[in-house]
Amino acid sequence: MSNQKDKLVKSITSRDDDFAQWYTDVCRKAELMDYTDAKGFIIYRPYGYAIWENIQSYLDKEFKRTGHENVYMPLVIPESLFLKEAEHVAGFAPETAIVTIGGKEILQERLIIRPTSEVLFCDHYSKIVSSYRDLPKKYNQWCSVVRWEKTTRPFLRGSEFLWQEGHTIHATEKEAKEEVLGMLDIYNHCGKDLLAIPFVMGQKTDKEKFAGAEETYSIEALMHDGKALQSGTTHYFGTGFAKHFNINFQDKDGVLKPVYQTSWGLSTRLIGAIIMVHGDDSGLVLPPRVAPIQVAIIPIQSQKEGVIEASEAVKVQLETLNYRVKLDISDKSPGWKFSEYEMKGVPIRIEIGPRDLETGECVIVKRVNGEKIKAKIADLSTLVPRVFDEIHEEMYQKALENVTVNTREAKTYEEFKEIINSKPGYVKMMWCGHSECEVKIKEDTTATSRCIPFVQEHITENCPVCGRKAEKMVYFAKAY
Amino acid sequence: MSNQKDKLVKSITSRDDDFAQWYTDVCRKAELMDYTDAKGFIIYRPYGYAIWENIQSYLDKEFKRTGHENVYMPLVIPESLFLKEAEHVAGFAPETAIVTIGGKEILQERLIIRPTSEVLFCDHYSKIVSSYRDLPKKYNQWCSVVRWEKTTRPFLRGSEFLWQEGHTIHATEKEAKEEVLGMLDIYNHCGKDLLAIPFVMGQKTDKEKFAGAEETYSIEALMHDGKALQSGTTHYFGTGFAKHFNINFQDKDGVLKPVYQTSWGLSTRLIGAIIMVHGDDSGLVLPPRVAPIQVAIIPIQSQKEGVIEASEAVKVQLETLNYRVKLDISDKSPGWKFSEYEMKGVPIRIEIGPRDLETGECVIVKRVNGEKIKAKIADLSTLVPRVFDEIHEEMYQKALENVTVNTREAKTYEEFKEIINSKPGYVKMMWCGHSECEVKIKEDTTATSRCIPFVQEHITENCPVCGRKAEKMVYFAKAY
Repeated sequence: MSNQKDKLVKSITSRDDDFAQWYTDVCRKAELMDYTDAKGFIIYRPYGYAIWENIQSYLDKEFKRTGHENVYMPLVIPESLFLKEAEHVAGFAPETAIVTIGGKEILQERLIIRPTSEVLFCDHYSKIVSSYRDLPKKYNQWCSVVRWEKTTRPFLRGSEFLWQEGHTIHATEKEAKEEVLGMLDIYNHCGKDLLAIPFVMGQKTDKEKFAGAEETYSIEALMHDGKALQSGTTHYFGTGFAKHFNINFQDKDGVLKPVYQTSWGLSTRLIGAIIMVHGDDSGLVLPPRVAPIQVAIIPIQSQKEGVIEASEAVKVQLETLNYRVKLDISDKSPGWKFSEYEMKGVPIRIEIGPRDLETGECVIVKRVNGEKIKAKIADLSTLVPRVFDEIHEEMYQKALENVTVNTREAKTYEEFKEIINSKPGYVKMMWCGHSECEVKIKEDTTATSRCIPFVQEHITENCPVCGRKAEKMVYFAKAY
Repeated sequence: MSNQKDKLVKSITSRDDDFAQWYTDVCRKAELMDYTDAKGFIIYRPYGYAIWENIQSYLDKEFKRTGHENVYMPLVIPESLFLKEAEHVAGFAPETAIVTIGGKEILQERLIIRPTSEVLFCDHYSKIVSSYRDLPKKYNQWCSVVRWEKTTRPFLRGSEFLWQEGHTIHATEKEAKEEVLGMLDIYNHCGKDLLAIPFVMGQKTDKEKFAGAEETYSIEALMHDGKALQSGTTHYFGTGFAKHFNINFQDKDGVLKPVYQTSWGLSTRLIGAIIMVHGDDSGLVLPPRVAPIQVAIIPIQSQKEGVIEASEAVKVQLETLNYRVKLDISDKSPGWKFSEYEMKGVPIRIEIGPRDLETGECVIVKRVNGEKIKAKIADLSTLVPRVFDEIHEEMYQKALENVTVNTREAKTYEEFKEIINSKPGYVKMMWCGHSECEVKIKEDTTATSRCIPFVQEHITENCPVCGRKAEKMVYFAKAY
């Protein structure tokens, strides 16, 4: 039994030996994904896809609750349409995949596979909006997009990934800006309530913002290795796209005006965040609310009378509460099963053996810290929900502590470089507002500005890089 | 008021004047879709997409209930992989879209945008299956596929459409064949229970079956104009793909064997079926269970005291029962609103005016037949569910009657040609089993064999086309 377990556990690299290899090992061994012969295009296997479905389900409810409607736009963008907004094109053209042949014939106009769908939404909005009565339009779509990437990593950077992209238009700047911050807030809550991930929220610097946006906001998460991961972004476009695409409306005062526009997106990258924030040397650790399997029931000495029956009864009991439960009655050893569900990050396993039956008890084992709880089977319906809330909170606090401990401040540029090169995590530093200082920082250290956090502090008067008067405090970090 | 209504109604062509134009008018005026500059690629607008979401929700539950798991496979297929199974290639190669450029470089290997994903699933299965313990694998994916079409029509035939594709592998022929018929049965129930559409179920002839399949089964629906629409198919592949792609497993007896495989798919074509089975000269008519808006509440003389409040209370009352309700308090006239929700096929509208309030009543108007029901507001919670069941049944029976009345039999080929050229609907006729007779029928009449129905009859001894001994009774029809 312990040999089997050793074998499975040893089959993944230790986090501290080689974090990148550990990550890939978890992706494969937990059966989240598989590679294909088309570079950068991965298969989302059932266990990985189910995590995405749970994220979708949470967000889709939130989007609909806040008045958004789902649509589906075409997979392809005619090249002439794609080329309409120069700044946007400059950002995406280098990484497009292009269809040049259809139905055995060379196409008269090449078709770009959507890297993002701003221009499709703009074109559609320009056709269906004419009056203030038509506003706002708050659309979202769930789809995949394609961006040709040289270096790819499962979930983090791929030639194709799954995401949602919201695209909204509004009659006023105020309403559009509220949308941009409102959706960021929903993303942030998704981290706190569903994924047990604390995000830092803030605005991107001009250098890091989305191609074509006036303002970009992001949620940033800190991975176990101390690198940051941009986990979702929202964009305020002002009237830039509207003017290029003629999205105008007649306002109440009779005047024709361009609309104010936003977009916001969140992708399967979040699966990467979950892995790297919570995982450990035994594999994945999933927060209970997003876990495809929330409870694994493992019968011990299942050949003994009553063990299987009792296990099945527990399954029914928990499924009645709408939990996702897996009862494993396969002929593998209990130890093997323990390792398997540990690798898959199942939040709790329940062990039921013949001796437990005598006392009407079972053992709950928490994946996050291995803690064992002896429990009356009759109490599970009240106990399990409590244990799940407890696990969620523990995971969130652990992740938050990683952020807190690994957020440092720098008063001088020397100090900044010393910290960023020797310690994991964020460095808070004042910044003058000029891109050239960000460029220098990146050249010197590979670190980038993550965001200008909403919660500001005043560390120094001047920008430590150039000495000019500081405008804002910025979070810097090495990032994925 | 009546002028407004006239204007809106007159803006669509009458069904009997020009069915094709009527169809396109409904697609546009009910705001189900819009065209784009990429031919055959349409926009699924919120109202059209919401119908698809409701179909998805129904089917996804059924798929999961029957042990299927969702996955996501890549959008693209490397050309060498695509070319592996000759028969399959022959069926799909003429209509593929091909990516030849990625990241500004010409690709070494061209990538086919999936027209269907058999080969991707095969390739994956060959890597993850080795033992009978790994079987069955029952995967499904929700995605869009691309098939280059010369003639396109919204929802019915497009260069891109949304669908689900199930792909399963099994240890035995028996289990695979049960899967193929089991999924057909789920499709059939989706028609009966959700869409109020009666399907004819049966097997496709060899001429009409899927490229690479040993057996294909389909559900066929009859449109208002008397043409048939293939609405979903399931395929039994035997071990054909498994042998090409080396999907083998070691069976309990220690012998290495190829798996038995199936696939099955159902698409947004169903939206076309809903339109053409149920629609009328006032627009769309939606069955209650699939309607994005199930109840439209229209206040009459809404400026009078209490009307809006009472309308809002009804909204809350019905939403508590989980109905999808729209209360329209816009400044349009009631008559205009009536036409609008008729065009959109909303199953019932509830009118609430000042005189109704005195008696605590309202008026329910059924979209399907214009029937008005005077009802106590206090009774709505019990009445509305009953009215919905009644509407569903009425719509189903009406559609069934269209099938029954328009299914005729032919004992001679002359009789067949006379009926198929002068009457709408199906013609049942005996058939010898040879493709050449189907070819002749198609050449002479444009009609095709729809399916060999499970419920067989014995009409004549011989095939009326060639005189050979008849094998089966077949449904023939002109079809979309």
